[in-house]
Amino acid sequence: MNGKALVLFSGGQDSTVALAWALDRFEGVETLGFDYGQRHKVELDCRPVILERLRREFSPWAERLGADHRLDVSVLKEIGGSALTDAMAIAQGEKGLPNTFVPGRNILFFTLAAAVAYRREAKFLVGGMCETDYSGYPDCRDDTLKALQATLNLGMETRLVIETPLMWIDKAKTWELAERLGGRALIDLIVEETHSCYEGNRERRHEWGYGCGVCPACRLRASGWERYRASHP
Amino acid sequence: MNGKALVLFSGGQDSTVALAWALDRFEGVETLGFDYGQRHKVELDCRPVILERLRREFSPWAERLGADHRLDVSVLKEIGGSALTDAMAIAQGEKGLPNTFVPGRNILFFTLAAAVAYRREAKFLVGGMCETDYSGYPDCRDDTLKALQATLNLGMETRLVIETPLMWIDKAKTWELAERLGGRALIDLIVEETHSCYEGNRERRHEWGYGCGVCPACRLRASGWERYRASHP
Repeated sequence: MNGKALVLFSGGQDSTVALAWALDRFEGVETLGFDYGQRHKVELDCRPVILERLRREFSPWAERLGADHRLDVSVLKEIGGSALTDAMAIAQGEKGLPNTFVPGRNILFFTLAAAVAYRREAKFLVGGMCETDYSGYPDCRDDTLKALQATLNLGMETRLVIETPLMWIDKAKTWELAERLGGRALIDLIVEETHSCYEGNRERRHEWGYGCGVCPACRLRASGWERYRASHP
Repeated sequence: MNGKALVLFSGGQDSTVALAWALDRFEGVETLGFDYGQRHKVELDCRPVILERLRREFSPWAERLGADHRLDVSVLKEIGGSALTDAMAIAQGEKGLPNTFVPGRNILFFTLAAAVAYRREAKFLVGGMCETDYSGYPDCRDDTLKALQATLNLGMETRLVIETPLMWIDKAKTWELAERLGGRALIDLIVEETHSCYEGNRERRHEWGYGCGVCPACRLRASGWERYRASHP
């Protein structure tokens, strides 16, 4: 497919599959990561390893894979953290979210991505957001992202397109999509190099990858793997 | 009017009038400034002075004026500057904008403001954007901001309202609005303490305030003042 894409690439399973999806169909693909002192910062360390293996092991994709960008969005910590806590009483544990949770984070990420895409002349913004078995954050929803596309295009006088190839598939189908895109080699890469565990655990190895095995992210990843393996022995 | 407002307050003329407008009608008003290494950084230094005078000289407003927040958005510099320039050839002087111009800046600012408002339980976001005699940036336009309100409310599951009281009035009418809201005292405060000049000039004093007197921002401010004075001797 014609055109250039910028992929929001965190180093997690979903954004890695979204990246493979983009490499499969766009002429040029660049990647963007966000550093905001996230708890599972280990995910950021996975990024260059994944990119390196994609370049080395997937020759048709290697020449499409362009620059990798990384932005410091520690402003998220400012909003979530002490800068605003002096007179703050709300949100402690609200909906199970930590007090440092920043609402609308994906709106911020896509807005920054759109600014980068504008400069890099990329028409497509690709993200691994999913409404099927997800965290429930409303900024991951399809409605939000479609409204955001319209807003960004009005505000930047561009014709960007937001693509979310995982929006309507569950975690089992995400493994299937990965297999279809890159075969067993891509499955291995995802198992070995992508990170999902909220605890940042890279010690315990499971069939489906590294992680503590008990946090919600690990359980989601494990159960998707079980269902995928059941239908793809 | 019921409710709490968060005003995007830069220290410039427009956002100061927007702040006065908010103080005139909301029970509680907080302010938010953005630090991104802007050239006319002197504008940020004007902020506490303006807030202090509003508290001291406008007694009905003093008790409504709450916390002042300031966020570091140096990520704008990262996007505009060297972090992305390695393979960049575009935008030098494009539409007269500097290479460090970041498209959609107001979308970013309102998204951050919405996150702060969410934590501070403010329903109204107020900004001094204006489509009448303005820079031409599409992220100041009414269509953009209305689409953004819908996006933010979808993405945060809130019912925020974006208010832009200056959207459809010119700079002469902005002075008139200031007079209606705060009388001659507010006009004096705006002349003496708000900053518009792109060159950051706080030396040369004119009837309408400080500034180089020749940059586009000064000329816009001066011509609005002339028209206002002609009809309000």
